[in-house]
Amino acid sequence: MDLKQIAKDTAKVLISYLTYQAVRTVIAQLDETDPPRSLWLQRFSTKERVQDGERYIQELFPEKPDLAFRILTVREHLAGQICEFLPEMVNSGIQQSNMEHRRRQLERMTQYDPSPSGSHPEQSASSETENPS
Amino acid sequence: MDLKQIAKDTAKVLISYLTYQAVRTVIAQLDETDPPRSLWLQRFSTKERVQDGERYIQELFPEKPDLAFRILTVREHLAGQICEFLPEMVNSGIQQSNMEHRRRQLERMTQYDPSPSGSHPEQSASSETENPS
Repeated sequence: MDLKQIAKDTAKVLISYLTYQAVRTVIAQLDETDPPRSLWLQRFSTKERVQDGERYIQELFPEKPDLAFRILTVREHLAGQICEFLPEMVNSGIQQSNMEHRRRQLERMTQYDPSPSGSHPEQSASSETENPS
Repeated sequence: MDLKQIAKDTAKVLISYLTYQAVRTVIAQLDETDPPRSLWLQRFSTKERVQDGERYIQELFPEKPDLAFRILTVREHLAGQICEFLPEMVNSGIQQSNMEHRRRQLERMTQYDPSPSGSHPEQSASSETENPS
């Protein structure tokens, strides 16, 4: 498990996602101030294009440099506002979701076995992982 | 700009991405200890399926509960190891990338205009954003 590489890749995905959120934000802002430009940006921002935030911006600059500059500013602002909250949100989100998945699976397994008292139902299924504590 | 909603959506995307990284990790581990199971998991983990981490796990549990439990454990571990570094990585990553995009655009604009000394080239194009400092 190459944690350093996974962290790098995750940061890249996150930057791309925040670029997409910046695009959505600018589209919404333009929708109120300059609807034709909002429509232009919506059409430019195809699903395929916004998948890769860096390439998206590279392609936008020759077309509408002012919008590209604006998206850069918005994504930097977004990152500054929300990044610090993400570790806590993600860690607790995963813990809660994991608990929920385990609970559901436990219910499923006890439904299949009418007398689950003989063995801990999670034990056999999790033999490849650590023992549930 | 609904920062709270954007933070929630971003955390969800991040959880899904870490689930995908956990799947990749388990596939690589199994590749060394149990190649047929690795192959099975590879085939199960289609691009479409891993797009939504929660649904992926829901669908995996009835098929191979031990692998599903293992992926839960790995994604929780991954999150615990890398999340704390993400804010710094993402903030500095965006700042560096923004600087690079602005530099390139500046070069592009000064190439079009042979006498850029008359006006600051970034000024006019970024009229919709804040003034560049």
